[in-house]
Amino acid sequence: MKNLTKENVTDKVLGTFPADTNPREREILTSLIKHLHLFVRDVSLTTGEWLTAMDGLYRAGEISNPVRNEFILISDLLGVSSLVDLINDNAPIATETSPLGPFFVKDAPLLEPGGDMIEENSGTQGVVRGHVLTPEGKPIPGALLEIWQTAENGLYENVDPDQPKSNLRRRMKTGPEGNYAFTTIQPVSYQVPDDGPGWELLGMMGRNPWRPAHLHFKISAEGFRPLVTELFVEDDPYIDEDVVFGVRNSLAVSFATNSSQQDADQFNLKAPFWQVEFDFKLQSA
Amino acid sequence: MKNLTKENVTDKVLGTFPADTNPREREILTSLIKHLHLFVRDVSLTTGEWLTAMDGLYRAGEISNPVRNEFILISDLLGVSSLVDLINDNAPIATETSPLGPFFVKDAPLLEPGGDMIEENSGTQGVVRGHVLTPEGKPIPGALLEIWQTAENGLYENVDPDQPKSNLRRRMKTGPEGNYAFTTIQPVSYQVPDDGPGWELLGMMGRNPWRPAHLHFKISAEGFRPLVTELFVEDDPYIDEDVVFGVRNSLAVSFATNSSQQDADQFNLKAPFWQVEFDFKLQSA
Repeated sequence: MKNLTKENVTDKVLGTFPADTNPREREILTSLIKHLHLFVRDVSLTTGEWLTAMDGLYRAGEISNPVRNEFILISDLLGVSSLVDLINDNAPIATETSPLGPFFVKDAPLLEPGGDMIEENSGTQGVVRGHVLTPEGKPIPGALLEIWQTAENGLYENVDPDQPKSNLRRRMKTGPEGNYAFTTIQPVSYQVPDDGPGWELLGMMGRNPWRPAHLHFKISAEGFRPLVTELFVEDDPYIDEDVVFGVRNSLAVSFATNSSQQDADQFNLKAPFWQVEFDFKLQSA
Repeated sequence: MKNLTKENVTDKVLGTFPADTNPREREILTSLIKHLHLFVRDVSLTTGEWLTAMDGLYRAGEISNPVRNEFILISDLLGVSSLVDLINDNAPIATETSPLGPFFVKDAPLLEPGGDMIEENSGTQGVVRGHVLTPEGKPIPGALLEIWQTAENGLYENVDPDQPKSNLRRRMKTGPEGNYAFTTIQPVSYQVPDDGPGWELLGMMGRNPWRPAHLHFKISAEGFRPLVTELFVEDDPYIDEDVVFGVRNSLAVSFATNSSQQDADQFNLKAPFWQVEFDFKLQSA
């Protein structure tokens, strides 16, 4: 391997795999090495540019912490997360998926169907309800929904010391008809974090830093593939330019205003309030 | 951008660049996005595999510190650093280059030509000497050599609390004939760090973790392109399988034994000692 040249180095690197490596790991790493090398060759990356990249990755690590993974943000901004999501999507049999994002937290408090997530939060009040179903439309009782969203200031509770722990973050098990329902405030559009290499990358790309308002869902039930998805406010100003490419046609929904106090009474809300109806469909495992 | 599909997502991501982005940044990021997406498509990366990658990058950040950049190690192990080095090489006009590696430290103590770097170190003693020259063979007086190497235990001083600060790490200005010389111990072959994601990657690739013994040099002089290179012990057992692909034919040199006490006296050494003669050639800036 002393006789390395720019012409043969890729083949020499790929030639170092012994025969007994795990076939899937070999497939992934072989392709990764090939494509990283093609990229370096394509742009004739300079040593200075390579050092800038190494420094950016170092600083992405420095700014990451247990509730913030800057590498996920960078993957999101480059459309890699969205592509992985689309490749692994269940649609059209089941509900379309959308990336998990960096703000999911396990083991949120459990809420009964019909329960309230608003508590002390200010914001436009409303209700989200529907069912968790099989692709054929049969109810899935006892399915676990995990729900999380921004507060009115555009922040998730786990990155905002001013919010109570688990604020606007709940788990809920569907009722006998596969039904779920909860009252909450309308999520708001927000910018991705502006203090790390992800933000610098956005600057280089000259892109808008906004995500349209959305609710996150992770839904699991025995015998079904877990579903990670989002519901977007369809008339959000950023609905057509989500900075992390998470919006899907079928997931942009109406947060329709309802002026009936009789309807509002059902949920202990005051009219007018907004209302989302959405049935999730899970695919068999 | 609601109508994202796995077929169109790459074009949609590339379509977000406004017209006024910096042309070189656009070129690099466009190619990076294209090749990352090609990689994801090529192997049909699963969501779980993507999460494993995000976790690996997170942990690479966690284990990095101001004297250790795990991302540089990963780039080295995948042959990316070597490819960048080969693409930007000065050869054949000047001395071949080799990657900087993660152990360079600026502003090491200054040593006069002929000075001693051994101090309290045990190991096989010898001398390295030669000249810094133009491609035409004219001497470059006052060129700055920065030299760093492992101690006998295979560690660099900046990652080994048991070594004195700046141990086996010096700067030296060439004399009137472009001459340099220093006594030192023979560098040893060593394994890359075994406690981070880089090591895990090596395990997946089933590769040996060794670097052949080498001396690092960074050489600068006004009016010339800086030269980053290494000199390798040509009969090292790992000379043909450097884990980071840094060896070049012209940089594998003889650490020849010299039994003459008369020669040894010149350098305050005891015979037998080893001797390396090497002239570096710098290319005009």
